[in-house]
This record gives sequence, C-alpha cells and structure tokens, in this order.
Amino acid sequence: MIDHYLHIDFDPAHSLQQQLRQCLVDAILRGIFPVDEPLPSCRQLSQQLSVSRNTVALVYESLLDKGYLISKPRSGYYLHPDYHHVAGAGHVAPVSTAQAVNGMSEGPAQGGVQWSSKVVQSAGHFYGTLKPKNWAHFKYPFAYGQSDSDLFPRRAWRLAERDLLNQENLSLWTADNADRDDPELIEQLRTRVLPKRGIWARPENILITLGSQNALYLLARLLTGPGIRVGIENPGYRDAWNMFTLNKAQVSLHPVDAEGLVVDDALSRCQYVYVTPSHQVPTGVTLSAARRRALWQMACRHDQIVIEDDYDADLNLSQHPLPALKSADTQGRVIYLSSFSKSLAPGLRIGYVVADEELIDEMRALRRLMYRHPPFNIQRLLARFLAQGDYDAHLRQYRTAYRAKHAQLHAAVEKHLGGCAYSTSEGAASFWMAAPEGVDTQKLAWAAAQRSIMIEPGTSHFLDGTGSTRHFRLGLNGIRAERIVPGIQLLSDTLMGAGVLQ
Amino acid sequence: MIDHYLHIDFDPAHSLQQQLRQCLVDAILRGIFPVDEPLPSCRQLSQQLSVSRNTVALVYESLLDKGYLISKPRSGYYLHPDYHHVAGAGHVAPVSTAQAVNGMSEGPAQGGVQWSSKVVQSAGHFYGTLKPKNWAHFKYPFAYGQSDSDLFPRRAWRLAERDLLNQENLSLWTADNADRDDPELIEQLRTRVLPKRGIWARPENILITLGSQNALYLLARLLTGPGIRVGIENPGYRDAWNMFTLNKAQVSLHPVDAEGLVVDDALSRCQYVYVTPSHQVPTGVTLSAARRRALWQMACRHDQIVIEDDYDADLNLSQHPLPALKSADTQGRVIYLSSFSKSLAPGLRIGYVVADEELIDEMRALRRLMYRHPPFNIQRLLARFLAQGDYDAHLRQYRTAYRAKHAQLHAAVEKHLGGCAYSTSEGAASFWMAAPEGVDTQKLAWAAAQRSIMIEPGTSHFLDGTGSTRHFRLGLNGIRAERIVPGIQLLSDTLMGAGVLQ
Repeated sequence: MIDHYLHIDFDPAHSLQQQLRQCLVDAILRGIFPVDEPLPSCRQLSQQLSVSRNTVALVYESLLDKGYLISKPRSGYYLHPDYHHVAGAGHVAPVSTAQAVNGMSEGPAQGGVQWSSKVVQSAGHFYGTLKPKNWAHFKYPFAYGQSDSDLFPRRAWRLAERDLLNQENLSLWTADNADRDDPELIEQLRTRVLPKRGIWARPENILITLGSQNALYLLARLLTGPGIRVGIENPGYRDAWNMFTLNKAQVSLHPVDAEGLVVDDALSRCQYVYVTPSHQVPTGVTLSAARRRALWQMACRHDQIVIEDDYDADLNLSQHPLPALKSADTQGRVIYLSSFSKSLAPGLRIGYVVADEELIDEMRALRRLMYRHPPFNIQRLLARFLAQGDYDAHLRQYRTAYRAKHAQLHAAVEKHLGGCAYSTSEGAASFWMAAPEGVDTQKLAWAAAQRSIMIEPGTSHFLDGTGSTRHFRLGLNGIRAERIVPGIQLLSDTLMGAGVLQ
Repeated sequence: MIDHYLHIDFDPAHSLQQQLRQCLVDAILRGIFPVDEPLPSCRQLSQQLSVSRNTVALVYESLLDKGYLISKPRSGYYLHPDYHHVAGAGHVAPVSTAQAVNGMSEGPAQGGVQWSSKVVQSAGHFYGTLKPKNWAHFKYPFAYGQSDSDLFPRRAWRLAERDLLNQENLSLWTADNADRDDPELIEQLRTRVLPKRGIWARPENILITLGSQNALYLLARLLTGPGIRVGIENPGYRDAWNMFTLNKAQVSLHPVDAEGLVVDDALSRCQYVYVTPSHQVPTGVTLSAARRRALWQMACRHDQIVIEDDYDADLNLSQHPLPALKSADTQGRVIYLSSFSKSLAPGLRIGYVVADEELIDEMRALRRLMYRHPPFNIQRLLARFLAQGDYDAHLRQYRTAYRAKHAQLHAAVEKHLGGCAYSTSEGAASFWMAAPEGVDTQKLAWAAAQRSIMIEPGTSHFLDGTGSTRHFRLGLNGIRAERIVPGIQLLSDTLMGAGVLQ
C-alpha cells in the first residue's frame, strides 16, 4: 500500500524519529494519504522501513498530539479532517519539510494565532553543521568542536568556584552590571592570553561575548546589511554565512587552497573579509605568511576590514604558531575574535573580541540591548581560574594530549585511508577528508553510524550549495586516544563496504 | 579665563570623571579653547568646579591618551593640532556629547578606519535606566533591580555546584548543545515554577533566555519591524522601548493608572501589547482583574498578541497573587516572559519564555545564530538547585525578608515623605514616588548622593521624553532593612533642603 512513496534517507544528523516524522508530515501535506483509509499500521511501517515498532508508535503519537492524525479505536490512525482538503491532491504546492516539521503549516489546530504570518524575519531555515545529538554515545565519535570532558580541569575549577562565594566576589557577580564586563577577566585576557598571540590591547579594546559566534552576530548586525559585500571562505564556516545572510549582506564566496584563503582581485571588492587564519574551517589549513601579508596589504589599499576568527587560538599545537593578523594591525583594521569554547568547553559560551575602541563601544551598546552582559559568575570564575595560573597549566596538559591524538590519527589515516586525500595542519584538531570519486559521504556517515563510528559529512561546509558530497571531517575532540586507530580501521572497512559508492 | 563656559550638572548616574571628560570634549569640539594658550591648570579647574585635583588630572591624562590634547613640559596641556581647525569657531555644528565621549568624532587619531561611517545600525544612543555604577557603595542605596547578595543561598548553591562536576553532568554541560536547553531545567520550570503562576506548559513551549530582556530582544527582532504597531506602557520599561525602536517598530505609548495599563480603543489598534501585569514598571501597580479581562477580550477581538513580562513572578509577596495572563490563554496569544534575575541574581542572566511551540521554534533558531544557547553550566546548576527544593526554600526566606522591608519602607514613606504621592502594591519591590511640584528629582538625587543616599530619578521611565522630572523610584533590593528608616529620614531632610526646588 505504501511502498511506493515512503522513503527515508537515513541521515545520521537527525534522529530516526525526527526523520520519520518529517517524512510522514511531508506525505500528509502533499496529500498522499487517502481520506477514508487508515494509515499503515506500526507493524507494516516498521517492516517496510526497518525501524523499530516503538519508533513508529512514538512518531504516530506525536502526530496525533499535533493534530495531524486522529485515532479510531481498533482501527488505527487516520488523517485529521483538517488535512482532508489536501488529500489526494498531488498538485498541491510542495511544502518544505523543514517548514512542516517546524509546525509552520499546522493550521489552526493551536487556536487562533497563525505565527507563520507574523514572523517578519525568520531564521528557521538556517541550519548549522550537521551533527547527531547523541554523538557522545558513539563508540568512535570523530566529533569536532565538542568538549573533551575527560580533560576538563575539575580540581582547579572547583577551587575557583569556591572563591566565587566570598562576599566580595558574590556581590560583584550577582549584580546587574549593565553593559560592563568583569575588569579582572579583561585584565587577565589582556596580560596573559592575548600577548601569546602577539596582541597588546587596552581594556577599552576588549569585549566579552557568548562565544566567538556571538561576536560575529553582533558584527554582522552592526556593520552589514543590503549592498554590503562580505567575503568568506568556501568551503567555510556555515554559521558565518548564516549570520551575514540573515542580515541581508551580499555574501561572496572565495576559494581556499593549501595556503588558505586565496587573496585576489575578487576578494579586494569586498568591504569585509571574514577569515579563519590559524586553522581554516573546515580544512584545517593555516593561512601562510605570504597570504597574510597579501591580505593585509589588500585590506589597507582597499580600506577593507578583516574579521579574524581565531576560535582555537590557545590550542595551537605547533611550537611557533604564526602570530594573529591582529598583532600587526596598526590601523584598527582587524577585528579579532576568539573564545574558550575549544580550550575549555563550548557549553560555557565565553569568548571575546579585540577591536578599535569605537567599534567596541558600539558592540557594547548593542549587546546591552540584546542581553546586557555575559553571565558574570562565569566571567569572574574564569578570571579567577586564569589568575591562579590554572588555565596555563590546563593548556599544557591539553596540548600534550592533543599532540598525541593528532599523531595517532595522522598515522591511522595514512595507513588505513590511503584512498582518501586529506588536509590538516600541525595545530588543527581535525582532518578534512576527500573520499574517492563516487563516494557519497552522507551514506558513508550512515553506514559508519551502524558500526558506532561518527564522522561529519562535509556537504554543509560548501556554502554555494553545489559542493562536493565526497568530503567529510574527522574531529579529535570527542574521541579517546585509544579508540582512534580501531575507529579508523573500522571506517576503512565501511568505506570498502557495499552501498557507500553512489 | 574659563569661568563663563565650563559648567557641569553633576549627575549621580555618571562618575565625576565621565562628566568632566564629556564636558571638556564637548568644549574642544565646539572650538571653545584657544589654539595658543594652555588649557586651565588642574588647580584652576579643580577650584572652579569643586572637584578634586586628582579627578581633573586623570581626565586630562585620558584626553591626552585619546589624542585630544598634547602636553608641553612646564607649560601644561594644549589642544592637539588636529583640533585647531575647530578652535574659536563658535559656529561649528554642535556635536552631541554622547558621540564625543564615544569617541565617534575622534577623527583619524586611531588610524585609517572611520567606524562611524561603517556602523549601519547603531544602538549607541539607546540608554537604560540611570543608575550609578557604584550604587553598592552608598550607605542608603534605594536601588531597584539589583541583587541582594546577603540573601543569596550560598550553601545550597555550593552543593549544586559540587554536583556539576560529576562525570554525567560534566559531559552534558561542557558540550555544545547547539539549539537545545537542559531538559532537566525545562522540566523543573514546567513542574515547579510555572504551575505557581497557573501555567501548564509542555517542554516544547519553553525556551531558556539570557534574562527576560533577551527574550524580548528575540521577539522584537522576529516579530516587529516597520509598520508594526507595538503598544507599551508609559511610564514604562525603557529597554522595551529601546528594543522595539531599534527594530524600527511603530511604538505607541499608553497610559497607566491605579489599575495598571489603560485598555482602550487606542490600544486596540496595536498588533502587539507589551505589558508588566504583576508589578508595572516603574509604578509597581498590579493590573486589576477587570483590566486583565478587558485586555484578553480586546486581544481576541483584534487578533492581538500580548507579551506578558512577569519579570518578578516568584517574588510576589501577596498571599493570593493573580495568576499570569498566560494561564487563561487558550489560543497561544500570550507570550510569557520571566527570569531568575529578581529572585536570585541579575548577574546570572537566566530567564525563560513560554509560548506557542511554533514561535518557540522560531526563537530557538534565531537564538542559535545569536549565541547558540545560554551557558549550560548555569542551566544545569539551576536545574539541580530547583530539583533539590532549594529554590523554594530560598524563596520563603526571601519573601519573609522582603515583606519586612516593604512594611518598613511603607511606614517610613508615610511618616517622613508626607509631601510625596506614591504608588506601589503588596508584592512590589519598589515605591514610585512623586515629589511636590517644583522639585527636580535629578537635583534631588545629586543632593541625596552627597549624603550617601541613592535614589533613582524617574525621568528615563517617561518614554515620550516630555515626562515629569518630579518622579523617582525607591527600590528595596540594595538596601539593608535597618537602613531603611534612617535613609528615608535623611532623604526627607534633603528634600526640605536648599537647591532641590527648581
């Protein structure tokens, strides 16, 4: 009865339930189900799609709950009368499944309010990097951008927390500090963190943000808009593209090669250049010294602003990392972003910007309206943690662990994934892989997931939407050192296996 | 030499240094200083303005640093040559001092970048409620909206913090959770916090935000824009006005009387109504039951959306507070905002929204771009704190303390400030005062500050900019119980004193 139209491309980035629900909602809205017959039973659907009956039952229950279906005792699930008018109408305009799953087309079931008509500026269609929610439950999670909670400096953190409850600290961090940041944290950044990147800043040049993504959001909102051309790397950081696009900037995409972002005439036509010089997202390539010079000279010549996202500044594993672009900025032309997400924990949401005081003032004013200031308990905690020297001690441990992981992954990739090209760099916490022609890495990711290996398909990093499906990323953040080699061996088997080639 | 043009209206909301700097920058940009003479010496200026020489010296140093002045050994401070062209030119266009102090007119001193020409959308001119930074150093700080760190539940907080470092919690909160919130916190809100306000919500109806201000920012961005009419209370919450105005909504102001927001034909012409029903900001008045009915009926009739800011929900001191407007909302027409800022600490920046799932999905998508999620360590910490029953215990203590404070302030106001009208309500943590005709409460605040009393002048709450200068707010958050009566006595003396009447 249903075998000809229900199909699910099992995508490891979404739960089975989500995907099944999306598929069914899509079918309902496309008018695929008949009005007077029950929908396929749980047993039927479970057999056809090879998913558990329990999953099907849960999805049916949620559709019932949402008003898509009604349930008739001893008969099964039927289309809700609200959706009868679309039934059988193969000609109805296709509804995007994202909309459908968002409930944006749910009609009047919830009452009188039609939110879809009220939302003036939706961000619902901007997706991020695809990653399964349950990545931590994989045996071999080659996850990127996640925390490595095994390496979290618990003892020192607890001591810093204890400090926070003394009267002086307590009355500082519990207060509404309007648009201000913790001066102690600013001082620690200024004197202990930034100098390692070659940056000497005054307190007025620094603003704390909720991760570097939040800094980028503030910048996109303040500085960009229709007609303003922003150059970004492609493949690149999807959320940068999202934020500039949300603000209606004219985003132009620029290629990346083995030296990083290509600096050419096309790039010189942008007012802003967003770049990830230390480790390009997602390729991991370091912007070469020659390119840095070219970028800086171009920026001066064309009065361009460079947004330097140095998101994993502190983790650099190489002995002599290149200093930040910002370090040579004599004109206030570089806006520097970084964060503690990669070195401590992304869940903390703490980052910072270094820029011209005038711009910092503008960001501060917008931030005040948006959320006043990042939580002050976290600011003070981090300040104490830095002041005690615990952050430096933590970084030493962290770097040692990562150097070992990086070397292991490197050797395993060379040995077992010989058919794949790859890029990385000394300090990067990931490998950017290109599988042989004909491999669809969405399918590879799903097949790998069946063996409890998590890899990140690369499609979402190609910002022009026409990118390769051959790429994937192997991250070092989620996986334990001893799992790296067996994980890559198993992945190699999977790659050889059936069903992965297109 | 300078006595005819340098004048400072000492404003307790700004530091002396700030005000003096602003005054001098203004004078420089207006071309008041001669090119070939030194500026007044520190001693001269300190005498004329009755401020310390140290303050003057610090301000001069900062102007030197900013490139406004140059210093000549054994001679003094002179105008920097960059500002010679404006010197003596009384006809130059007046520069707003806010701009000047922001450094937006500083010219090329910082290098080649002119940020003022690059900022597409500035929020720099939106100010908040005026409050001195150093409010906590006053002996009698009648501050509102601050934390009462004496009442902070330290012991329970420390226990919850300890919980956070076990492996399970650690791997949850250190992770990047993309657009998700802590399910345990959502569950605690749903089952322990919201039912007290008469609200029964599903997890999909709740989103965690960085305080209720952040929720309002998300809403203003998603739902409003040019041509969309938003009704707000006047006097009212300045930052609500700021956020809607930043998003170019058409903000209309509606009066407040003893029953709260006036519900009339003018209000019915708005698409959105922003209201603070429990304790109106700043008057403290509770929206009456009759008004609530009228508001709801109007909203249904005109397909309006009500944004209910129940910012101090948990602190309500009355035995039988009216349930939230949201509790009677059968149509998903009320968006409910609240936070832990008033009951725990504004520095934590944790609040929440309850609304229709479809709208929550949209807010979640925008939030993901803006900053992903509120810090997960705080979410989990608060979840543990609630789950252990510590929050309820804290509220009992808090309410007892506030009932006593409220009664004391009430009696003191009745006894010593008989000349002032006032409004408050059983559960409010503030009194909204109207001084006798002819009193300028900016001046009163300054005179009070000389006696270490902090009061909040009311002007900024009148959103039409033409409001009374007679009003001020007495808050209960910052002051210790035993200081209330002597503080009000002293304030009464100040009010009687010279210089306060206009």
